[in-house]
Amino acid sequence: MIDVPLPDSRAREEALARLDALVKPVGALGRLEELAAWLSAAHGVVPPRPVEDVRVVVFAGDHGVSATSAYPREVTAAMVRVFLAGRSGVNVLAKQVGARVRVLDIAVDDDLADVPEDVRAYKIRRGSGSIDVEDALAPGEASRAFDVGREVADKEIDGGADLLIPGDMGIGNTAVAAALVAAVLGLPAADVVGTGTGVDEAGRARKVAVVERALARPRGDGPFDVLTALGSACAAATAGFLVQGAVRGVPVLLDGVFSGAAALVAREIAPDAVHWWLAGHRSTEPSQAYALKALGLAPILDLGLRLGEGSGAVQAVPTLRAARAVLAEMGLLADLA
Amino acid sequence: MIDVPLPDSRAREEALARLDALVKPVGALGRLEELAAWLSAAHGVVPPRPVEDVRVVVFAGDHGVSATSAYPREVTAAMVRVFLAGRSGVNVLAKQVGARVRVLDIAVDDDLADVPEDVRAYKIRRGSGSIDVEDALAPGEASRAFDVGREVADKEIDGGADLLIPGDMGIGNTAVAAALVAAVLGLPAADVVGTGTGVDEAGRARKVAVVERALARPRGDGPFDVLTALGSACAAATAGFLVQGAVRGVPVLLDGVFSGAAALVAREIAPDAVHWWLAGHRSTEPSQAYALKALGLAPILDLGLRLGEGSGAVQAVPTLRAARAVLAEMGLLADLA
Repeated sequence: MIDVPLPDSRAREEALARLDALVKPVGALGRLEELAAWLSAAHGVVPPRPVEDVRVVVFAGDHGVSATSAYPREVTAAMVRVFLAGRSGVNVLAKQVGARVRVLDIAVDDDLADVPEDVRAYKIRRGSGSIDVEDALAPGEASRAFDVGREVADKEIDGGADLLIPGDMGIGNTAVAAALVAAVLGLPAADVVGTGTGVDEAGRARKVAVVERALARPRGDGPFDVLTALGSACAAATAGFLVQGAVRGVPVLLDGVFSGAAALVAREIAPDAVHWWLAGHRSTEPSQAYALKALGLAPILDLGLRLGEGSGAVQAVPTLRAARAVLAEMGLLADLA
Repeated sequence: MIDVPLPDSRAREEALARLDALVKPVGALGRLEELAAWLSAAHGVVPPRPVEDVRVVVFAGDHGVSATSAYPREVTAAMVRVFLAGRSGVNVLAKQVGARVRVLDIAVDDDLADVPEDVRAYKIRRGSGSIDVEDALAPGEASRAFDVGREVADKEIDGGADLLIPGDMGIGNTAVAAALVAAVLGLPAADVVGTGTGVDEAGRARKVAVVERALARPRGDGPFDVLTALGSACAAATAGFLVQGAVRGVPVLLDGVFSGAAALVAREIAPDAVHWWLAGHRSTEPSQAYALKALGLAPILDLGLRLGEGSGAVQAVPTLRAARAVLAEMGLLADLA
C-alpha cells in the first residue's frame, strides 16, 4: 500500500458554503459547483489556485494483442513521430487549452532510433506480451514500469504541473484495458469488450475470445500480478503516474478507457489515490463505464471521442477552470441591491 | 417568412473528406467531427475561420407569471446591475473564453434609472403580462420586440461577432418557455413544466396550473400570435436575435430552455434559420428537450446547469474552437511514416 494524503475536507465545506452564497439559485451551476468544491479540497484553499500548467504524458507502447485492432501494430511507432511533430489529435487539442504534451516510448515494438533519446529513456521493453497466450510482462517489469510512471509524474510536478493528464497510444490497448477491468471487477469478457477504434461485430467477437483466453490463464491475485498477466508496460506506467499525482497532492484528469482501467488497478495499490482523480471524458468502450462506476467517478464530458491519447481529458480542462473561476470571481447574493 | 441563406453543403462535404484523412481512426473525434463539418458549411471554407469574437446578449425582462418562481420579481432588476458590474455567472464564464457580455433591459419591471441609457435603449415595456390571465404583450409589441432582437444581432455582427449567444434573465421565464413549447408542439403543460431555478413539487404543480390556464386562453395561430399570448418581450426579442444571426450567416449557440423555446417559435418565422443554430448545453427543464428534439439539435454539453444567462452555451465555445482546430492543424494519415 502506498500512502496518499487526503484532500482538505474543511476547504471543501468552506467552498460549498461560498457556492451557496454566490449570486445564483442554490445548486444552479450544477457540475461546476461539485468541481469547484473538489478543487478547493485538493488545493486546501478557497478559492482554489488557478489551474494553469497542465501536462499530458502519452505513454506509448505496443500490446501483443494488436491483432484485435482495426490497425496494424506499426501504427504505434509511426504515431510517436506524429506526437513529436505536434500533429496528433491530442497535440492540437492540448494547444487549445495551453497544455503541454510529452510522449514517452514505454514499450513500442520498434527501436525508434530516429527519435530523441529522452523519448526512449524510460523504455521497458519492445512490445508487451500477447495476453491470450503469455504474460504481458516478465517478472519485475510491472513494478519497474510502475516506478517509471511515478518518476515521470514527479518530474512533471517538479516542473510546475498544476494538473496531470495521462495519455495512451498503443494498438491493441482497448483489449488490455478490457481484460484488466474484467479481472479486477470479476466481469465476463463479453460485458467489457467494445469496438475499440472501430472493429466490426466479427472483430469484436474475436476480441472477446482473446480476452476470455487471457482471463482463463493462471495469474496471481495482487495488482502487480494482474498487471503482469493481463496488462502491459504502458498500463503499469500509467498506474504509477496516477498514483504519484495523488501522493504529491496534484489533481489528475483521467482520459478514456485505458487510463480508467489503469486507475482501477492503481487503486488496489493506493486506495486513497482516487480522491485526487477526476474523469474527463466518457469513452465509447464499455469497460470504462464499469471502471468509473467502481471508482465512483463520473465523466465531465461526453463528446463521443474514441481516440485515446488524452484527447478527451484535455477538453475538460476549461470546465475545471470555469469551476474555479465562479468561486473566485462571482458576486454574492448579499450584494444584490 | 424571412429568407435565410443555406450553409455551404460543398464545404461540408470537403470537411468530411478531410476529417477522414486526418491521422486518427475514422470518426474517432466524435462530436468534434460533426461540429467541424457544420462550421465549415457555415463559413463556406475548409478549415473554417477561427471563432474568436463571441458575443453574449442577455435579454432581461420580467414575466407576469413570476409568482411561479422560487425568487421574487425584484431579482430581475437587481441582476441587471450584477451583469453591469461583471459579477454574474455568465460574466465570469464568458471571460474564461474571451466572450463579451451585453445586457439589455427589454422589459424589466423597474425604471432602472440608475443604469446607463444604452442598456435601456431597447425597452419594450415594464414587465410582460401574466399569461395565465392576459396576453403577454399588447398588439404590435411582439413584432417590435422581434425587430429589436434583429437590430441587436445586426449591431453585434457589424461589430465583428463570429458567434452569437442569446442569454436570458427574468424571473418566471421558465414558465413562459414551457407555455411556448407546449403551444408550438401541442403538448400538455404537465409534460413541459419543470422546477425552474428550484421550486418544490407543490411549486411545480402551481406552475403546471398556470401554464394550463395560459394554454386554455384564446389566441391566434401564427408565431407572433403565440408570442403575444404566451411569450414575453424577451422571448420575442430573443427570437429576432436568433433569426437575424441566421439571416446574416453567423452561427448562433443556443443556451438553455429560454432560447430553446424562442428558437422553436423563431423557426415558424424563418424555417431555414435552424441551420445556423447549435445547442450549447442541456437544460434540466423538460421543455428544452422537446424543443431541441423538434429542432433536430443535440446539446454539446450536459453539466447540469440551470442558471440561464447564456452560462451553459459559453462553456461550449471551447468545443467549437477545438472542432475547428483539429480540421486546421492535425496531420494526415498519408503522412504516417
